[in-house]
Amino acid sequence: MQVLTTQKFQTVAFQWPAGFYSDGIHIGLRKAKKDFGWLFSKVPAAAAGTYTTNQFQAAPTKLTKNMINQDHQLQGLLLNSAVANSCTGQQGWDNALQEQRWLANKLAVAPSLIGVASTGLIGAQLPMDLIKNGLPQLTPTKSDAVTYAVLTTDKQPKTISVQCELSGKLVTITGFAKGSGMIHPKMATMLGFVTTDAQVDGDLLQTMLSDNVESTFNQITVDGDTSTNDMVVTLANGLADNPTLVPETTDYEIFNQALHAVLGQLAQQIAADGEGATKLVECNVLHAANEADGQKVAKAIVGSNLVKAAIFGEDPNWGRIISTIGATDAAIDIATVDIAMNGMKLVTDSLAVPFDEAAVKATLQQAKIMIDVDLHHGSAHGQAWGCDLTYNYVKINASYHT
Amino acid sequence: MQVLTTQKFQTVAFQWPAGFYSDGIHIGLRKAKKDFGWLFSKVPAAAAGTYTTNQFQAAPTKLTKNMINQDHQLQGLLLNSAVANSCTGQQGWDNALQEQRWLANKLAVAPSLIGVASTGLIGAQLPMDLIKNGLPQLTPTKSDAVTYAVLTTDKQPKTISVQCELSGKLVTITGFAKGSGMIHPKMATMLGFVTTDAQVDGDLLQTMLSDNVESTFNQITVDGDTSTNDMVVTLANGLADNPTLVPETTDYEIFNQALHAVLGQLAQQIAADGEGATKLVECNVLHAANEADGQKVAKAIVGSNLVKAAIFGEDPNWGRIISTIGATDAAIDIATVDIAMNGMKLVTDSLAVPFDEAAVKATLQQAKIMIDVDLHHGSAHGQAWGCDLTYNYVKINASYHT
Repeated sequence: MQVLTTQKFQTVAFQWPAGFYSDGIHIGLRKAKKDFGWLFSKVPAAAAGTYTTNQFQAAPTKLTKNMINQDHQLQGLLLNSAVANSCTGQQGWDNALQEQRWLANKLAVAPSLIGVASTGLIGAQLPMDLIKNGLPQLTPTKSDAVTYAVLTTDKQPKTISVQCELSGKLVTITGFAKGSGMIHPKMATMLGFVTTDAQVDGDLLQTMLSDNVESTFNQITVDGDTSTNDMVVTLANGLADNPTLVPETTDYEIFNQALHAVLGQLAQQIAADGEGATKLVECNVLHAANEADGQKVAKAIVGSNLVKAAIFGEDPNWGRIISTIGATDAAIDIATVDIAMNGMKLVTDSLAVPFDEAAVKATLQQAKIMIDVDLHHGSAHGQAWGCDLTYNYVKINASYHT
Repeated sequence: MQVLTTQKFQTVAFQWPAGFYSDGIHIGLRKAKKDFGWLFSKVPAAAAGTYTTNQFQAAPTKLTKNMINQDHQLQGLLLNSAVANSCTGQQGWDNALQEQRWLANKLAVAPSLIGVASTGLIGAQLPMDLIKNGLPQLTPTKSDAVTYAVLTTDKQPKTISVQCELSGKLVTITGFAKGSGMIHPKMATMLGFVTTDAQVDGDLLQTMLSDNVESTFNQITVDGDTSTNDMVVTLANGLADNPTLVPETTDYEIFNQALHAVLGQLAQQIAADGEGATKLVECNVLHAANEADGQKVAKAIVGSNLVKAAIFGEDPNWGRIISTIGATDAAIDIATVDIAMNGMKLVTDSLAVPFDEAAVKATLQQAKIMIDVDLHHGSAHGQAWGCDLTYNYVKINASYHT
């Protein structure tokens, strides 16, 4: 759908779209950091979501999915970190329902307009007393506090605000996400939230979200592990007062382009803040036989432990890249693969070319590493993001539970 | 085929079967360690092989596969470490052919009876002058030197010798393997060699090897990366003079059981010596819907970076295990999963059970960690082996190339 040749939106300072309020506070789920928050629209919003494909889908993820799928409407979300409420059985499900009822009461809306989202340790029950006590402390603010309340091992929140003009009306799209480990989304990553004041029907919003998540959140990986709590939720409350979006129009294309940028930026921020990561890795695959192959090859490269460790070591070890390409079932010509790192050619026609190793190594000290692969085997492209594999990744994950 | 209820073979000290000779020496491919070797039978041997499914199959792997597939006969193999002769184009292929001709001349046999195997850095050409000069230095010994000559980042060689009696004849099966990183075999791992003096037709040997590799080499993973050079070759020279093996007989079952043990032991030795590893992890999955699902779940668990890092941290983090199970497409009942580590139950019916965390952590200091999963969803089993993810894995792989 992205037929616009120029960018019709701009990134702006963090701000909530019209009619959205939120808060983030500390209630004792984590030692000292913010761990509890809410997000709501003053009017019911069109809602869309994508969810983990992990068979052990967590209770909050399942509940929110059920609510959105009823009629693609949602008004408020209750969020917490530290405890994932995953693999918690009937009690976990009851707790998620209880949270939903409490927030519905607080907002004086039907429970069907409330979703819940949790992230943290799998297998532990939510401390419902802390949540019950915390709920009255949540106030409707325009701050970014909620973007901190969902973090676990993340070093920093992932946020973005963009604005575009639809038929003369200013529309804001603001997204935030959390996720640092157990990141290998199959449908969406850990937790991502996008709010907008655009006017758009829920069904169309769902289609646009699902399409754009495929090329953004679903193309990042930190560790190859797909979480039980993954969810991206998008709320559109229509307060920008633009004419309701219609596919195949300029407004639609502008909004879709802006939404794609929001999701893409959040996905990249998650990869860059992968557990222990020191570098963001972007892989672009050109001339694949089809888009699925291009995406598959790109994601395999950024997901390879060996490639990730080499990038941590600032080592232009292209053998691991080509081996990873060959280990996929993507259609390739094994004699026509070109590979470049940070714009410097390492491989032409699947063979080593002489390169200035010191110069390449110097560029590998950058915070963002570009791997370009040209398969010369078609006309489709693929793109994916990951991070390096570091001592700190091992350190963080050798002692998360205790 | 394994209908024998008792073990009909025994493990013995390392020794070559009748008629097999080998050597391993240093010719300058590595700094100081052994890097070049040979292995041959004094008479042509029945031969079987399994090979990498990586699309960039290395020249030596392809050449050896071609030779074995002609008539399942082979007599000698030339081996080297340090340089993989992979992604080396026409020159790499010509070099593999040249090695084949040189060894055929030295052994005075047809080139079609000679295979070659290389392991090491991808993309570099073999230094043919060093190989030409090294060849006359290889002598026919009964030592284990060749098992050192194929090592790269391995801490130690992987070897096993077993003996069984077939119709009154003593039969020896001896295997060795290398492999420490880029280990996620799709058909076979890096390099594995099994020799036996048993009398068995090449076609049958191929069937037995292929079947047994599925549940041994193909069920280990170190880092999820499938190499370009994977190959397991089995040679049977018949000098034990047993009656030629016939399927569905006791002799066949004894030999198959012994062969499975040899392949399984080598596979476990590779996993235990995974790059940077401090612990071998064995996962047994019970009551899967079918064998493929059982194998898939077991391999996913030992392959999860998060599980691997938790085991390095001696942390009984079962949430990562159950999340990994759910991330597969194996048929499961999400309410009936049991999980135990080192025999101590952590999860029953997919829910946490109280356990003595200090006691479990104490057992996680062992060199071999057992993860038992009961899916309660069928009657098939699965088994896989891996290792922990450590600081040293990152260290080794951040600086392999340079």
